[in-house]
Amino acid sequence: MMTTAVSGINVLTDGCVTSPNGYSAGGVHCGIRRKKLDLGWIFSATPASSAGVYTTNRFQAAPLSITKESIAVEQKLQAVLVNSGVANACTGEQGLIDARWMRSAFARLLGIKEHLAGVASTGLIGPELPVSKIEKGLIKFGEPESHGADLFETAIQTTDTSQKRAAVQFEADGKKITVGGAAKGSGMIHPNMATMLGFITTDADVSGQDLQKALREAVNRSFNMITVDGDSSTNDMVLIMANGKAGNSPLTEEHPDWETFTQALEKICTMLARQIARDGEGAARLIETTVTGAATEEAAGKVAKAVISSNLVKTAVFGTDPNWGRIVCAVGYSGEPVEPEKISVKLGHIPLFKNGVPLPFDEIEGIAYLNQETVSIFVDLGQGEAEATAWGCDLTYDYIKINASYRT
Amino acid sequence: MMTTAVSGINVLTDGCVTSPNGYSAGGVHCGIRRKKLDLGWIFSATPASSAGVYTTNRFQAAPLSITKESIAVEQKLQAVLVNSGVANACTGEQGLIDARWMRSAFARLLGIKEHLAGVASTGLIGPELPVSKIEKGLIKFGEPESHGADLFETAIQTTDTSQKRAAVQFEADGKKITVGGAAKGSGMIHPNMATMLGFITTDADVSGQDLQKALREAVNRSFNMITVDGDSSTNDMVLIMANGKAGNSPLTEEHPDWETFTQALEKICTMLARQIARDGEGAARLIETTVTGAATEEAAGKVAKAVISSNLVKTAVFGTDPNWGRIVCAVGYSGEPVEPEKISVKLGHIPLFKNGVPLPFDEIEGIAYLNQETVSIFVDLGQGEAEATAWGCDLTYDYIKINASYRT
Repeated sequence: MMTTAVSGINVLTDGCVTSPNGYSAGGVHCGIRRKKLDLGWIFSATPASSAGVYTTNRFQAAPLSITKESIAVEQKLQAVLVNSGVANACTGEQGLIDARWMRSAFARLLGIKEHLAGVASTGLIGPELPVSKIEKGLIKFGEPESHGADLFETAIQTTDTSQKRAAVQFEADGKKITVGGAAKGSGMIHPNMATMLGFITTDADVSGQDLQKALREAVNRSFNMITVDGDSSTNDMVLIMANGKAGNSPLTEEHPDWETFTQALEKICTMLARQIARDGEGAARLIETTVTGAATEEAAGKVAKAVISSNLVKTAVFGTDPNWGRIVCAVGYSGEPVEPEKISVKLGHIPLFKNGVPLPFDEIEGIAYLNQETVSIFVDLGQGEAEATAWGCDLTYDYIKINASYRT
Repeated sequence: MMTTAVSGINVLTDGCVTSPNGYSAGGVHCGIRRKKLDLGWIFSATPASSAGVYTTNRFQAAPLSITKESIAVEQKLQAVLVNSGVANACTGEQGLIDARWMRSAFARLLGIKEHLAGVASTGLIGPELPVSKIEKGLIKFGEPESHGADLFETAIQTTDTSQKRAAVQFEADGKKITVGGAAKGSGMIHPNMATMLGFITTDADVSGQDLQKALREAVNRSFNMITVDGDSSTNDMVLIMANGKAGNSPLTEEHPDWETFTQALEKICTMLARQIARDGEGAARLIETTVTGAATEEAAGKVAKAVISSNLVKTAVFGTDPNWGRIVCAVGYSGEPVEPEKISVKLGHIPLFKNGVPLPFDEIEGIAYLNQETVSIFVDLGQGEAEATAWGCDLTYDYIKINASYRT
């Protein structure tokens, strides 16, 4: 089952949110969407330490407020309910009433305390939550064919074309610890959260407070480093649950395995984030931009995001055009005090630009490189030691097609 | 000849850079581009007070440095030479040598001092300036043509599909004063200057210092309020020349007609900026977003630009989808401390969203409205009295087509 080993962290082939001990998941069709599954859930056998990271959009959707309320009580969740099709965003007071109802109906069904349930929604902004449909969907949760991470991953999709899942394992205190995850997100994806939901589960024993810190850091280096179209949405949220079933002594910053845990968490978040970027609306290619030689990690991140967000870079990659001019142009307007004469750019292994001056290169080789499914752009700023990586996708005819007719 | 009167400012039908007294212009084919004209010039009969506003991109193209150098000497220019096809950007030391050569060859031809000539380039980033082609083009400059401005407007185009020109008239000291302009720009257009060149001429008598102040303000409210794709380029520049041929007493901030002058200048800049936004690469529609009720003009501008820059808003307009959710989402991530419950949105005359809650509206009417050539979006923040307007365009299949194959 185990493959790529990264410093004691093993990626599980086909791992998912139910890979860690003590979690189940599922999804049903409740009728918000025409045919696709549209209501999913994750359940932990016992209450789990929890933490969340939320959109920075000023229009924060109702389910985010309600989930925050839940976690605030004792930094724990036992279950999460997610619907797709309707975002319950920009719905005013009624939106809060509906999200609260959703939480309470779900908690009642499971027989758990209300504040141990979280809720999430994704889909069209504006319409009110179709509560009667969700009510009908909840009844189906008992049926055996409603169970499985696979169904959960499907139920949370909107314009996604693929399921997003990952899991890794490592050891702490001689116990095997697993971290799993699921995510959705395709359009409206941009740094600082987007229409993007991420759910991480682990059987590690970690306090809610430590979990919050570790999650924030992992999200900053993964989900916050992807962009599809620059639009940060109202509904983005990444939640983590840690139920302690692995039996390790609680992981804290003092624990010798703390760093392995945070690395495992970052690994899961990065794996999911890359899957989201690759599935960007209409995308044909994943673009990975690594910026090195920056004065600070923040500066490196800002430059990497500027490149990955450029519509001109995105269309050049779609057109397999090794147009480094658009890359350096984006570096130049990133807002960071870069120094042109110190900047170098590579496309994969091909040097295009060195210390502010273009290099001769084999155009055919450049085009061939861009024809791959994953395109790596390397930018060195020549100013320091810090680095960061951001992920995005090319901009294609299909992006226009999907978004010029989303509602119809 | 005169049409729309705006508080003593009259728009000249078909006015252009040669509408003010004492200016001539022209354009030739020198061979940088296959067939299109690619070398244009503006000439003032006498040295004119001059000012410029330049891109904020850290990779500032060589011709901008050289033009700045010229203006710095005595805040005057008498002529400007512009080539299209090659941007002379990211060309290191050689780029500066070439731009300086271009200026000197042009000044020699005209028999003027070198520092009275300005140069500008637009086109592909990276390649060196083909100086021998420009040299050959300069030889053709001999014969003055009656349609000079027309040739100039054509020679400065790259992916533009239309010429951009405007002129207005007003009176100062009982003298008729004319302000004219030409511009190019189609892609890589974003606030804070883009691959966008603007040339303003006037026969008013104004000092270089006062001109600089007036130009900066006019540019902030016009060229800096448009976006096509969020990419600020290396070559953007707006230049103004004022040759005093109108015979007015010098316009200064104390002059009773100073405000009329600055309004006329803002009018010209806005007319040209709108033409650029409308001609955005692949654009089918001009989108105009006005934000009112802001605490400051800066805040209003930031929100208006966020809306106009959103790929999701742009594709919704292309798809004639009255999707107000994408508009409020962009308002929410603009970075300004907006308060959702105070925000209202209108599409033209159709209210869609009031005080944070969606309104019922006639979908058919919304679609019909979006089918117009100019689409106006109004956002009220309910926080103050300040307002700002930004211009952009829809995002279409043709944008992808143009930019996925710019070089081939």
